[in-house]
Amino acid sequence: MAPLVQCVPNFSEGRRADVIEKILNEVRSVEGVKLLDYSSDKSHNRSVVTFVGAPGDVKEAAYRAVKKAAELINMEEHLGGHPRMGATDVIPFIPISEVTMEDCVSLANELGKLLWEELGIPVYLYEEAAVRPDRKNLAWVRKGQYEGIKQEITHESRRPDIGDARLHHTAGITAVGARPPLIAYNINLDTDNVDIAKKIANAIRGSKGGFRDVKALGIMIEELNIAQVTINMCDYKTAPLYRVFETVKNEAARYGVNVLGSEIVGLTPVDALIETAEYYLQLEDFSKEQVLEKRL
Amino acid sequence: MAPLVQCVPNFSEGRRADVIEKILNEVRSVEGVKLLDYSSDKSHNRSVVTFVGAPGDVKEAAYRAVKKAAELINMEEHLGGHPRMGATDVIPFIPISEVTMEDCVSLANELGKLLWEELGIPVYLYEEAAVRPDRKNLAWVRKGQYEGIKQEITHESRRPDIGDARLHHTAGITAVGARPPLIAYNINLDTDNVDIAKKIANAIRGSKGGFRDVKALGIMIEELNIAQVTINMCDYKTAPLYRVFETVKNEAARYGVNVLGSEIVGLTPVDALIETAEYYLQLEDFSKEQVLEKRL
Repeated sequence: MAPLVQCVPNFSEGRRADVIEKILNEVRSVEGVKLLDYSSDKSHNRSVVTFVGAPGDVKEAAYRAVKKAAELINMEEHLGGHPRMGATDVIPFIPISEVTMEDCVSLANELGKLLWEELGIPVYLYEEAAVRPDRKNLAWVRKGQYEGIKQEITHESRRPDIGDARLHHTAGITAVGARPPLIAYNINLDTDNVDIAKKIANAIRGSKGGFRDVKALGIMIEELNIAQVTINMCDYKTAPLYRVFETVKNEAARYGVNVLGSEIVGLTPVDALIETAEYYLQLEDFSKEQVLEKRL
Repeated sequence: MAPLVQCVPNFSEGRRADVIEKILNEVRSVEGVKLLDYSSDKSHNRSVVTFVGAPGDVKEAAYRAVKKAAELINMEEHLGGHPRMGATDVIPFIPISEVTMEDCVSLANELGKLLWEELGIPVYLYEEAAVRPDRKNLAWVRKGQYEGIKQEITHESRRPDIGDARLHHTAGITAVGARPPLIAYNINLDTDNVDIAKKIANAIRGSKGGFRDVKALGIMIEELNIAQVTINMCDYKTAPLYRVFETVKNEAARYGVNVLGSEIVGLTPVDALIETAEYYLQLEDFSKEQVLEKRL
């Protein structure tokens, strides 16, 4: 397989369909880049776009989309329910296959320089691309959002990582980063007692001492009258699907509850499934090069 | 992913490196076809070549290789330890992804017609491409091998499926067919008692009433002093990896023996691993379209 990077930029426009379409067309205009998905939220006034391709092509598509967004979106006039700071709000680069996290950090730096030098948009580097520890967490980076950052950008703690300490006059400021792929994963329990799902969620979520890169909640699925542990697998390499699944099964067992099944919502990198098969089959000396499709 | 077919022709030449190289170069000459592997056996005087690509490209590569083999290999002079009947002995087409078995049967028929009409090489159609039930089994098709078929080819039971009832003057006759991908799979047992491995092999092999498309033997791995069940998974869709693995674990348990691990030898289609992950995670409503790489 060729090197593959995913990019999931968020744009501060979720209402004007023609503006969203023009941004999408910039992504589509780069040969070799595949637009996988996009969704717009009117009340958030925000769109999330997912595309993949070779590293250089993905960087080019991201650049063209940011440039178009800067032309068509004016943050001085933007209103929406989701915190935001730029016409292009965040751009994460995500290693999928044959690409390292370091490669994606390099991409984030290269794109960040382009945004400043070509478009005059200042940049925060976040998550794995962060150069300051307080910039790892996107929520902290975006604190105060557009209006607050406009006031505080000259403070040492809020200075951009790339570019001068001032917002772009329409496009604001953009966070560019690198992070592992996220897998949305749910596990269904054979119980209508949501408290059991909540207890299990607490056992596995990083914030409660569980797996560092797992976020989880216990919820009720009313249509099915069952409880569910709904999970964001933020790094399937540190907390693999099988480990989370087996831990939930074990925790459920103490309440006499069975696991009915699990579901992957949306997309998953194939490696997360290959590593699951490796675990359960107790494969010895297995290399991903043995996967026929990886040879192409 | 694009439609992907594998082809594993066997050529009746395992000694003259220059001849083998010329045949390989024919495969390499088709753009879009990827040569994955080849191996030659001097005592069998035979080479096995593996390549993949889009259906039309794979057919073209197979045709060019057969044509070259017919120029360079003379079955009248061929000697070797493995039964054989043609310069190109057998050509199976194997569906890997986004391709059905029926597509591969069509490819076999199309290539068969080309071999006869363009090169004058008669063709038996075998395995899934067989048009007569007695031609499903390659061993039956090849019965009597080159010399025997030369005598009997005009008999009703030995007539080619495509072409006249006579051998090509140098290239003999070729069997063209379609079959599922084969996965070479071993399961290691925590015992030095090979009889246990043999009993387990008999429990799972089709010929003893086990899984129809599984071949298995119990053998000793002398270097490790452990017994092993060595398996040919001839159709991972009818007998999936997880089912064979779990059955071996269950059978081993009756002898108080644990499974140490398993190994895939050589290549596997990714779908065999994805289906294994689906089983163990009890995935509900999962579609292969959710695998990111499948979207490309």
